[in-house]
Amino acid sequence: MEPTGEIISIGNELLIGHTLDTNSHWLAIQLNRRGWVLQRVTQLRDSLDSIASGVREAVLRKPLVLITLGGLGPTYDDMTLAGIARALHKPLRLNTEALRLVEEHYRRLETRPKLTKYRTKMATLPRGATPLPNPVGTAPGVRMKQSSTTIFSLPGVPSEMKAIFRTSIAPFLTTFGVNRPREFQFKIAGIIESALAPILDEARRAYPGLYFKSHPRGRETGPRPLILLHIYSTRPGSVEEVARAAGHVIQRISGSIRKERL
Amino acid sequence: MEPTGEIISIGNELLIGHTLDTNSHWLAIQLNRRGWVLQRVTQLRDSLDSIASGVREAVLRKPLVLITLGGLGPTYDDMTLAGIARALHKPLRLNTEALRLVEEHYRRLETRPKLTKYRTKMATLPRGATPLPNPVGTAPGVRMKQSSTTIFSLPGVPSEMKAIFRTSIAPFLTTFGVNRPREFQFKIAGIIESALAPILDEARRAYPGLYFKSHPRGRETGPRPLILLHIYSTRPGSVEEVARAAGHVIQRISGSIRKERL
Repeated sequence: MEPTGEIISIGNELLIGHTLDTNSHWLAIQLNRRGWVLQRVTQLRDSLDSIASGVREAVLRKPLVLITLGGLGPTYDDMTLAGIARALHKPLRLNTEALRLVEEHYRRLETRPKLTKYRTKMATLPRGATPLPNPVGTAPGVRMKQSSTTIFSLPGVPSEMKAIFRTSIAPFLTTFGVNRPREFQFKIAGIIESALAPILDEARRAYPGLYFKSHPRGRETGPRPLILLHIYSTRPGSVEEVARAAGHVIQRISGSIRKERL
Repeated sequence: MEPTGEIISIGNELLIGHTLDTNSHWLAIQLNRRGWVLQRVTQLRDSLDSIASGVREAVLRKPLVLITLGGLGPTYDDMTLAGIARALHKPLRLNTEALRLVEEHYRRLETRPKLTKYRTKMATLPRGATPLPNPVGTAPGVRMKQSSTTIFSLPGVPSEMKAIFRTSIAPFLTTFGVNRPREFQFKIAGIIESALAPILDEARRAYPGLYFKSHPRGRETGPRPLILLHIYSTRPGSVEEVARAAGHVIQRISGSIRKERL
């Protein structure tokens, strides 16, 4: 069984179409690369009720890791940690280590940094949580555990999200030691999806451990129907099986084929 | 009260980081533009269980509209309608009108199109559903009703998704007659977020109907901290209020300000 994950991406800017959620996409690539199966991504508004329900539901599905993105900053609409605290029935407490990290950050800006309520807010974590140093910004990341799920909370600023991911989450993910998934991708010209479907059905029966996914590109009724076919497996050491499956599908398809190794 | 919506975007390609979900982002813009409040976006794998639970949960939250994306094609991993049928406890039935649309499509490719099981699959809908013509592809969209929620299912191919949205969903959304939201956006240089936070707190109390959202850009400890401030409202006719709130915030901020009207 592959280790499973979920992402909750928080911010009104996502849901009004102001910002494209490239953070979740980047994390999806990172998880996949390490052999993790990302089961679900949820985008939520900056609302305490919404965050609390989203986190509660995710934890009940028991992913091995749950990563939240956004809502860790100093402003009133940054309410991720309050939402998690409510979901897990844990009080919010000023965390000494987190406060040290926040103070250290402001010391680079001011000789005697004032720890206003807006600044101490970023060091106020659900009880039992551990702060994660933020090498490029203010708000520390946060790590918590709820039964079998490890929860990581990261800021929404992409550079900060990536930096904390690299220093504090990537090592955690690799301890599960899953190999990188093997994949092939082809462009198939001259065949429409409903004609490819029986070939894929047969290939799927012959290779039950693999995924065969067809993505139509362009219009079927155009001069040259085009399908992107993606074959992949997350099991370690199955590169030969994926290559064999690719050969199998190619043999069955008439028409010109342009093959690309990912 | 603004009308509310949810999106469920389906496909392994999203969760392995193979495809960035620009479909949901495009739809978020469309909903926001028409004054709808998008409450949640969920990305799910091509799994019957996963789709059925995702749809069931969404319907229980009673959005006025639920839009699903992807999984309507002819291959075995296209299982959106089976998932919805399971969530709503409705049987799948071959729909005469949908079959006519599918046959009509293939008649453009073949003089006597064979209606294979892969092709009739695209015309097999949950009982009570209505097919929506697909002007640029094969699989029809689908419209259903579950208590107060209208469910629309669209294909994942962006051109098809957009075409069906324009012909069949946009008119539905505009019948609710909500005005376009008013918004202003500013870049504020020379102030860090924890210093802006009390100003926004005050503005929020003065203008309780508006959203004030700050997005840090770049590093706080860099030579020129930069914040993108977004002020918006979805209420009709509140453009003057948003303009007043913007003026209020500008007055309070020292430092250089570059103002941009969206």
